[in-house]
Amino acid sequence: MIRPTCFMAIAMVALALAVGERRAAIAQTPPASGGAVDPALLEDLVAANRVLATEGVLDAYGHVSLRHPRNPDRYVMSRSLAPILVTASDIMEYDLNSTPVDPKGRLSVQERFIHGEVFKARPDVKAVIHSHSPAVVPYSVTQVPIRPVYHMASFLYVGVPVWDVRSVNDPDAAALLVRNGALGKSLALTLGTKPVALLRGHGNIVVGPDVQTAVARAIYTEVNAGLQTIAIGLGGPVNYISAEEGAARDKNPGDPGRGWDLWKKKALGR
Amino acid sequence: MIRPTCFMAIAMVALALAVGERRAAIAQTPPASGGAVDPALLEDLVAANRVLATEGVLDAYGHVSLRHPRNPDRYVMSRSLAPILVTASDIMEYDLNSTPVDPKGRLSVQERFIHGEVFKARPDVKAVIHSHSPAVVPYSVTQVPIRPVYHMASFLYVGVPVWDVRSVNDPDAAALLVRNGALGKSLALTLGTKPVALLRGHGNIVVGPDVQTAVARAIYTEVNAGLQTIAIGLGGPVNYISAEEGAARDKNPGDPGRGWDLWKKKALGR
Amino acid sequence: MIRPTCFMAIAMVALALAVGERRAAIAQTPPASGGAVDPALLEDLVAANRVLATEGVLDAYGHVSLRHPRNPDRYVMSRSLAPILVTASDIMEYDLNSTPVDPKGRLSVQERFIHGEVFKARPDVKAVIHSHSPAVVPYSVTQVPIRPVYHMASFLYVGVPVWDVRSVNDPDAAALLVRNGALGKSLALTLGTKPVALLRGHGNIVVGPDVQTAVARAIYTEVNAGLQTIAIGLGGPVNYISAEEGAARDKNPGDPGRGWDLWKKKALGR
Amino acid sequence: MIRPTCFMAIAMVALALAVGERRAAIAQTPPASGGAVDPALLEDLVAANRVLATEGVLDAYGHVSLRHPRNPDRYVMSRSLAPILVTASDIMEYDLNSTPVDPKGRLSVQERFIHGEVFKARPDVKAVIHSHSPAVVPYSVTQVPIRPVYHMASFLYVGVPVWDVRSVNDPDAAALLVRNGALGKSLALTLGTKPVALLRGHGNIVVGPDVQTAVARAIYTEVNAGLQTIAIGLGGPVNYISAEEGAARDKNPGDPGRGWDLWKKKALGR
Repeated sequence: MIRPTCFMAIAMVALALAVGERRAAIAQTPPASGGAVDPALLEDLVAANRVLATEGVLDAYGHVSLRHPRNPDRYVMSRSLAPILVTASDIMEYDLNSTPVDPKGRLSVQERFIHGEVFKARPDVKAVIHSHSPAVVPYSVTQVPIRPVYHMASFLYVGVPVWDVRSVNDPDAAALLVRNGALGKSLALTLGTKPVALLRGHGNIVVGPDVQTAVARAIYTEVNAGLQTIAIGLGGPVNYISAEEGAARDKNPGDPGRGWDLWKKKALGR
Repeated sequence: MIRPTCFMAIAMVALALAVGERRAAIAQTPPASGGAVDPALLEDLVAANRVLATEGVLDAYGHVSLRHPRNPDRYVMSRSLAPILVTASDIMEYDLNSTPVDPKGRLSVQERFIHGEVFKARPDVKAVIHSHSPAVVPYSVTQVPIRPVYHMASFLYVGVPVWDVRSVNDPDAAALLVRNGALGKSLALTLGTKPVALLRGHGNIVVGPDVQTAVARAIYTEVNAGLQTIAIGLGGPVNYISAEEGAARDKNPGDPGRGWDLWKKKALGR
Repeated sequence: MIRPTCFMAIAMVALALAVGERRAAIAQTPPASGGAVDPALLEDLVAANRVLATEGVLDAYGHVSLRHPRNPDRYVMSRSLAPILVTASDIMEYDLNSTPVDPKGRLSVQERFIHGEVFKARPDVKAVIHSHSPAVVPYSVTQVPIRPVYHMASFLYVGVPVWDVRSVNDPDAAALLVRNGALGKSLALTLGTKPVALLRGHGNIVVGPDVQTAVARAIYTEVNAGLQTIAIGLGGPVNYISAEEGAARDKNPGDPGRGWDLWKKKALGR
Repeated sequence: MIRPTCFMAIAMVALALAVGERRAAIAQTPPASGGAVDPALLEDLVAANRVLATEGVLDAYGHVSLRHPRNPDRYVMSRSLAPILVTASDIMEYDLNSTPVDPKGRLSVQERFIHGEVFKARPDVKAVIHSHSPAVVPYSVTQVPIRPVYHMASFLYVGVPVWDVRSVNDPDAAALLVRNGALGKSLALTLGTKPVALLRGHGNIVVGPDVQTAVARAIYTEVNAGLQTIAIGLGGPVNYISAEEGAARDKNPGDPGRGWDLWKKKALGR
């Protein structure tokens, strides 16, 4: 299954991780702030939390982060709180080792290391989502790969790797949560250059070049998983979206703003 | 699978398409308006958008069009907007080449060519719906045909063809969207004289002699697909509605107004 | 599958049907009213319509009838209207040939003959429901019988027969609707002494000694069908509720009022 | 399937049951009250009823009990009422033989013996839930055991036994309800030291050291059952959460308060 292009992607990610490592070593505790984030961006982050809860991707758990727009070594994310309840005042700032800049007594998300390590490994990524996306979870414990059955999820054509926490020799691994940087780094390595990776017996991570794209990918990964399950249940071969089609669609997307505008209106009532 | 009646239907459609072609050649840009549309009809079109979203056939995408009541060479359809948000002021007018009469800076639906080409090919059709009807999508990527399992969807007895965009030698085909007239024409040819056709890895189109019938067909195609999936899952042969029954029901429908009245009330709150 | 007890039940029903036939021959058009029905009973009938729509058993179609409390040769039922919209003023009265007592220009339900014929055949029945109960429909087109998987649906232990309209030599049969007394009588014969029968490719009928019991049976038949589908999907033999258990539960029901009170509150908001 | 650890657990439970038995023999009718319960705890119990109904675990039936905080021989539970309607004034007090302390004419839940007998057998348990959890019921009538497919339900790693009422030689057994202490005791013996047990053709019981934990377990048992059904449907071996992982997670839970806070807000609107 390791093809040349895949191998090169892994090599690129490994390199990025090494760079991130050096950066981390330099960081101090508590880290300095990357500066105030534009309120419109924070509002998008709040909206993303609520949209994903409204659309059934996030339940009481799961989280969404945004890379700091002017300081790529910082990211922002809500304190530990059910996503549907998140407001702008719940957003905290972290460095890429996931150390909070100024916790003010607020409880950080335990699995924030997912976000810091993905931001280290993937300079192109500006938003990271972690969810227990229900239609997706079954694919994390079977040998059936998620593949795109319809064009709204064509971005899945590159493949959806599954990361198993047991592959990491770490004392935190058995409890199944990504509670430290080593686990987060291993997960980021499995993600490679792709938009989505599954966590075995857990859920998924979805990334994007902006929070709107990441949200759309998370929603359509959930929808696609449900439709793929039905297609498999009908029996016989499934006529998946091909790599050629996926690549062509990546270059000629439809009208992504239409989804975001609706979801935001549904979630925020405006 | 090509039976005499099916062949004749295809021949009729091919003829209609040829007529449409000549008509298109005469058309100018920007086309002239077909005249104001009765507000009650526009309200039905708005209701159709909202009903189909409320009933789970349309999500953020998909669209509904209505042939101009006094000028069969024109049709009306909302600008690119999530269907649940459509109001009368969002409705635009197009000629059958899907050129907007007076865009006023509004963004047209990219896949409007579906509508124009179906209206060209099918003089009997007054309303066209394109959706990502979720229970239907899996049937577009498997070899299991949609067939009617209950009487509300008996109109499916004529068969539900699946159109694969890859069958068209067109530069836009790979990106999976019906972005030009050639793709729309090919899809219309596959639809033939039928009420419903699937787009592989995409969704479906549903047509009718009026918007209420098209809406009912879209809703019951979705419901039927879900029930058919369950019936197949139970195992053993499925006792589908027969061609004789489907034809008899076409001649003696039940009380279709009852559905429309309820759906409209649910969607519009009145 | 015809066992002695089943045969006796059919004989009893055939006898009841013959009695009903004589009664019908005597009836005049328009029939006389059986007298005013207690408003509290009418309110229960209105509630039943709304409850069944709220609980997902009825959609835009389907209907609920109540035998006239003081005149067993009459029944009451809403005019043709989506059940969720029914109010007391929509209730019409019929004789057992399903001729309206005083239509006042209101459209009667086309399939009212289901109700009249079941009331003729089953003196013990005081309420009849006809629905397109979605989880149930697939069982009407497969060879898998509905059987009880949990105690709330233990009343199904007597078996759920499937009636196929094609078994009746009647000009209305092909269009799949129970549009006359002959079709209704045939369906009632298939129901026999049981609480539930399916109509192939259509839905079901559910009866009870009062409207609350009929409603509970309709809801739990729907729930049971969904759970049975899952159980079958898990594979291996299913450990159904036995006849002994079903009979014991019939004699020692739980607390049926608890369900009715909740459903009514949900549907009517009080 | 009887392993040494399982045998020891059963022995421990048998011992606890014997102690409970002696306690029961001493109890008088009507039993004395264990004293007023802290209103905050009662509010948690009310919230638990409403949360489980809102989250789809409880329907019109099912119930939640809480051991008396200062008198372990008493427990409190709502009178027979749909859980979504429960308020603090509906809470009644019982001794462990499930005799009400002061019924005041209120109807007790018929299956309250489940609660009394589990509290007798399990001194560690402070809250008991009985439900018809819909995704769970199918596992009670098949030979497929519920096992954890994701980390939120890792507590299921100890196994989920299925209790069949037919295993008890009791006149009430055939009617399928746990209507007396003997049936409740048998169920408690099957539960053993575990958090969840199924009742064949009926539902489940879920216990916890506090009402919040029991509620979370009931919700995630329901979610897990649904996801497991999908995973099994996808085909091939399922990569369940291992015993080592389940045990590790028990010692290092995530952030359970986050779920409770959200569910309570959704159910109570505050």
